[in-house]
Amino acid sequence: MPRPPIPTPQSLRRFLGLVATSSLLTAAAAAADAPAPLAGFGNEAGARELALESRFEALLSPAEERAWMQRLAAAPNQVGSPHDRENAEYIAGLARSFGWETRIETFEVLYPTPVRVALELTAPTAFTATLREPPIAGDRSSQDPRGALPPYVVYGGDGDVSGELVYVNYGMPGDYEELARRGIEVRGRIVIARYGGGWRGLKPKLAAEHGALGCIIYSDPHEDGYFADDAYPAGPGRPAGGVQRGSVLDITRASGDPLTPGIGATAAAPRLKVEDAPTLLHIPVLPISAADALPLLAALGGPRASLAGRGALPITYHLGPGPARVHLVVKSEWSLKTIYDVIAEIRGSELPEEWVLRGNHHDAWVFGAVDPFSGQVALLSEMKAIGALHRAGWQPRRTLVYASWDAEEPGLIGSTEWVEQHLPELQAKVVAYINSDLNGRGTLGGSGSPSLTRLFNDVAGAVRDPQNAASVLARARATAEVRAASDGATAEQHALAQSLAAGGALTLEAPGSGSDFTPFVQHAGIASLNIGFGGEQPGGEYHSTYDSFDHFVRVVDPDFSYEVALAAVGGRLMLRLADAAVVPLRFTDLATAVNGYVTSVHALADRMRERALAVDRLLDSRAFELARSDHDPIGPPAHQEPVPNLDFTPLERAATALGASAAVLDARLAALDARDDPRQREALGALLRGVEQTLTDPRGLPDRAWYRNLLYAPGQLTGYGAKTLPGVREAIEERRWGDANEYILRTAAVLDACRARLDAASEAAR
Amino acid sequence: MPRPPIPTPQSLRRFLGLVATSSLLTAAAAAADAPAPLAGFGNEAGARELALESRFEALLSPAEERAWMQRLAAAPNQVGSPHDRENAEYIAGLARSFGWETRIETFEVLYPTPVRVALELTAPTAFTATLREPPIAGDRSSQDPRGALPPYVVYGGDGDVSGELVYVNYGMPGDYEELARRGIEVRGRIVIARYGGGWRGLKPKLAAEHGALGCIIYSDPHEDGYFADDAYPAGPGRPAGGVQRGSVLDITRASGDPLTPGIGATAAAPRLKVEDAPTLLHIPVLPISAADALPLLAALGGPRASLAGRGALPITYHLGPGPARVHLVVKSEWSLKTIYDVIAEIRGSELPEEWVLRGNHHDAWVFGAVDPFSGQVALLSEMKAIGALHRAGWQPRRTLVYASWDAEEPGLIGSTEWVEQHLPELQAKVVAYINSDLNGRGTLGGSGSPSLTRLFNDVAGAVRDPQNAASVLARARATAEVRAASDGATAEQHALAQSLAAGGALTLEAPGSGSDFTPFVQHAGIASLNIGFGGEQPGGEYHSTYDSFDHFVRVVDPDFSYEVALAAVGGRLMLRLADAAVVPLRFTDLATAVNGYVTSVHALADRMRERALAVDRLLDSRAFELARSDHDPIGPPAHQEPVPNLDFTPLERAATALGASAAVLDARLAALDARDDPRQREALGALLRGVEQTLTDPRGLPDRAWYRNLLYAPGQLTGYGAKTLPGVREAIEERRWGDANEYILRTAAVLDACRARLDAASEAAR
Repeated sequence: MPRPPIPTPQSLRRFLGLVATSSLLTAAAAAADAPAPLAGFGNEAGARELALESRFEALLSPAEERAWMQRLAAAPNQVGSPHDRENAEYIAGLARSFGWETRIETFEVLYPTPVRVALELTAPTAFTATLREPPIAGDRSSQDPRGALPPYVVYGGDGDVSGELVYVNYGMPGDYEELARRGIEVRGRIVIARYGGGWRGLKPKLAAEHGALGCIIYSDPHEDGYFADDAYPAGPGRPAGGVQRGSVLDITRASGDPLTPGIGATAAAPRLKVEDAPTLLHIPVLPISAADALPLLAALGGPRASLAGRGALPITYHLGPGPARVHLVVKSEWSLKTIYDVIAEIRGSELPEEWVLRGNHHDAWVFGAVDPFSGQVALLSEMKAIGALHRAGWQPRRTLVYASWDAEEPGLIGSTEWVEQHLPELQAKVVAYINSDLNGRGTLGGSGSPSLTRLFNDVAGAVRDPQNAASVLARARATAEVRAASDGATAEQHALAQSLAAGGALTLEAPGSGSDFTPFVQHAGIASLNIGFGGEQPGGEYHSTYDSFDHFVRVVDPDFSYEVALAAVGGRLMLRLADAAVVPLRFTDLATAVNGYVTSVHALADRMRERALAVDRLLDSRAFELARSDHDPIGPPAHQEPVPNLDFTPLERAATALGASAAVLDARLAALDARDDPRQREALGALLRGVEQTLTDPRGLPDRAWYRNLLYAPGQLTGYGAKTLPGVREAIEERRWGDANEYILRTAAVLDACRARLDAASEAAR
Repeated sequence: MPRPPIPTPQSLRRFLGLVATSSLLTAAAAAADAPAPLAGFGNEAGARELALESRFEALLSPAEERAWMQRLAAAPNQVGSPHDRENAEYIAGLARSFGWETRIETFEVLYPTPVRVALELTAPTAFTATLREPPIAGDRSSQDPRGALPPYVVYGGDGDVSGELVYVNYGMPGDYEELARRGIEVRGRIVIARYGGGWRGLKPKLAAEHGALGCIIYSDPHEDGYFADDAYPAGPGRPAGGVQRGSVLDITRASGDPLTPGIGATAAAPRLKVEDAPTLLHIPVLPISAADALPLLAALGGPRASLAGRGALPITYHLGPGPARVHLVVKSEWSLKTIYDVIAEIRGSELPEEWVLRGNHHDAWVFGAVDPFSGQVALLSEMKAIGALHRAGWQPRRTLVYASWDAEEPGLIGSTEWVEQHLPELQAKVVAYINSDLNGRGTLGGSGSPSLTRLFNDVAGAVRDPQNAASVLARARATAEVRAASDGATAEQHALAQSLAAGGALTLEAPGSGSDFTPFVQHAGIASLNIGFGGEQPGGEYHSTYDSFDHFVRVVDPDFSYEVALAAVGGRLMLRLADAAVVPLRFTDLATAVNGYVTSVHALADRMRERALAVDRLLDSRAFELARSDHDPIGPPAHQEPVPNLDFTPLERAATALGASAAVLDARLAALDARDDPRQREALGALLRGVEQTLTDPRGLPDRAWYRNLLYAPGQLTGYGAKTLPGVREAIEERRWGDANEYILRTAAVLDACRARLDAASEAAR
């Protein structure tokens, strides 16, 4: 389903967010000049490790990746399709042939498939939407999409509804505020939203909360079509007929099978009734192409959309309601489908009960060359190369586990069910989970647990960028610095560049959701890292029939160099995690990130307080009425109650204390590395791999107990995008002052627990 | 020609730029609550003045304005057309009938008219541009444009050229930097630029400087077409077939007749040869519609334009060069034409040698309902009402002069020649010049000499907004405050809103160019003020056939309420200037503005210094190469030499001293007003009305000696937009450090001269 945070021009800023470190030269900075010792290794062991990794990289083959992708993307691969199952068996067979102990684990999950979809404009003129993606010259898959389902989203409601149409721009909360100021209601009407601005599933969710009968989502050329780039087949932009499929499961509440929240969806598991499932929506939702949307949008009257609400179709964007009226039908077949997770392992020689995990999904919306196979073929490369090293005599210290998940697209289901099914074992054993998903040419980005920052920088500094004679780390750092030097750069971008210029590490983006790392980091409290290259292209193939092998080799990455680079990064991360004397987690980066989150959440409250006062002053002076024009009338915003003074002291105290403890521990870990002394490894490993779990609270976040990590979560009103200190931050944003105070204390408590764990580890690392 | 600074959403920020005042409650602030004494009047005289102004306003008639506009816009009105001359005579006849002593003053000026224009795409496919504006249902003028010339720009060169096409976005300096970084040359090629981003005339000028053979300018729907608003006839947006005509005279060097720079273009005046005229361009230039541009732009290959360089046509914007090739022909007939300035006066009773001036032009590109007649009919209303007051016995203390200029469109020619012809008399007699031009529904804005700030606020506080039950000042203030409270507001907008909230005056935008105030304030050093309502509409009719009476009454201002409001503001300004005991100029506002300019020019040098260092660091670290992608390759920017430390002390000292002297003078003027004592009037008037001239230097600005005002000028690289302290600022921007140092001293010298004049006035006002 989800779009991992590949660095598009728009998202790269978030994605490369950097927090200044107070430490001296970090490994990342040093990597740009002279190599520093690898985290987790002494000098001699580090040299051996780098030699091993060089052997590993030499075994990666773009030709093999190309052949695997062609095979995997040869037919539609949606959940429940014959080819998706065949792919699971094919991947399992390859893994066995590479020397991995491999099994397929199945679950039974709710997966509705469309039986009937229809959309017509019935007034002021008649138009019937095509609801199909036309064939494209030179794209064999689009010319023969046998086995594909019609464009649809999964987990919307069934319905046959008619009503006036309202254009809601991105359909995000700010858009509804604007509609309210213009006196436009969506109740009893059907909304049309464009993709972008926030997660797909929030669009129908918010529409339903505002009383809409149905929701249409279309791909505006502004986001990933001709405005962004040349349309396929000329380039990677979305053609006018392309449709973005996707999930509208309420993943902000929980991911996974909607009928078995919190437990593995085995055949025997107790199940909710469909009508009781809390993550299902209840209004019909249909995704359509720009070509189908144009007649609908052109038929709207009413006020013009605000400047920021206008797309790139050649029309004046109006909001409605009406005179356009539409008739929308969505009917699905709501049965359970079997899903197939492939799990492969090579057992550790010294510490077999410490697991290092790697995963990527294998299900797709249609053919799925980019999503998921651009990432999946990297995994296969890694497995083949590691298997060969193993056969040649290399023994990993820890156990390596590679997973190829099914049913990621509908809601991270394959990974979530597996995590829920094996939760205690995973929490006890897993050192870290490394995820990938779709991949492309461009800049490396990482999101995940800040304790993996140092490892990420170490590895990124060792892998060469295919386009430039430098490491992928150097390119990512340069990209951030160049962006900050361009006109219109933000204060945040300047701060990042300044920190990088001073030798600071490239930080990880806080993890939200959007791929299979979510159940690990958000639910289980397992340190996780999501990696991927991107940022050069708009991804106009995303979740469409045109995401095909022919498309990939024509406009995405014809020589597979960035899929090999992904395997190089992923494999080195795994090898280093598997072989390090003490696992290479570092906690100053964590403490620095936490202190940054605390500062920003405090500033948020101050900013909201000032803003509420400013708006109130303007309401009092009737400024909104006075500034109003007949040609573009808009009412005043709603009065907002004052923001109270919240006491952030417990958080600030805990974050500061965490920094001190982290500094002590990191120094001791570095000393241990230098001694290369195996004695304390086992006790210390058990302490360190549980650090991320200390950041969780079993009571979870307000109204979404499945999300237990109090440091980051997907935003309830952003979807994939992370909110840091979510219990506190979202309570402030949503003006739940009681929750804010409560979660200041609960978050301070987990930080204190984390600090205690770091102190215990410091003791063990003496 | 020029687009006055009506407050479009984009320009309102500049336009409402406010500088904090150090004074106590200003009149503007007070106007929002209780009325303060009128500047220039004691309490009793002020009450009489307000009563007079009420009688004046009651005489303004929207029905008359409508009838005048219909008559004036009945046929095409370009310079040299029969109807433009008839309009001059009609206006003169009306003025005489209103009781004004009226004459028509003529000049003989170079005005080329198109004989042949042609544009074809010759490769990769063939397309012949229509070069015409199709008729629009319900618009009678567009259906019968007899007497109109084909769409053209005036003062480009003749030529018949062929070559590869290059898209240069707005064709501004930053666009050429980007082209250079992409390795694209325009030399020997033909450029196509979209309107917007800077003044029209800079596009061919810069293209020619870069070696282009010809220049095409088109109206992208993003700027004023369907993206901005519904296209006419549904709304005020530019239809796909609409063309923006205009002048490409090098007005940044001098306005006026190209053959008689600096002197009045009388029949007997000595003239340059056309080939020696410094303000003429030498490459062919042609304006075209979006409909004609689309096939040309769609045929371009090469790199994609940057995000900011993409318009709203339904294509991917590419830069070229080629494969599109075009053939462009422009031939004109280059003869002198007679122009007709209408000058009407009512002689002052007490101070006849003190003149108060008001003007608006009467020539148009085609019919000209908005531009110029929306302003011209307000002038006629003012003249009729003032004439009626005069006949009823009221005698202005000073002489009122109303002018209706010809040939503003090709280069402010009617006003410039008149100023040049009568320069010593005008410099001796004129108190202030009040200008208007096109007008529309919306917010009042003013640009001009800061010494008129107080008067502008006084008057704006007395005129009621037609849409809201408040003054036009209250609306303008509220608009600025609401904008500052919206997401994405700039620091400048916040500062403005804070100052307004604290009771600060609504400041005037610094005067640049774009209408007939230019020769007065920039060349003659006469205090000037440009006024106009706008900001609600994109002005899609601008300089096209569709700027018709039918268009005006359908989509611009059907009830003429904002033309009456313009007459109310303009007439009150004139009456108050004419009747004040001592002219209501105030100098604390001037000193505050000057101190703001000095601060900002100092900050500019610091910012450029930091930026040059930052770019150099990135060049040294090869960051631009490292961040480069094959899919969107762009080279590094050029190395920039370091910015030296400039000594701003002379400027800062002079600006500070000016503030002290201004405060003393303003206090004495207020005391004089309160005494209502006529004794010092004449001596003081002579001192005060010369203050703006103390800000001029007869040596003028570097390379453009015609521009003598050292406080503001149209930017050499912005066109209409003002640069403050232009001798210093542009020298810094263009890295002419010698000029920067020289103009710091020259500008400090005029500030010292200004201060000395204020001190002399303070003496006289004891």
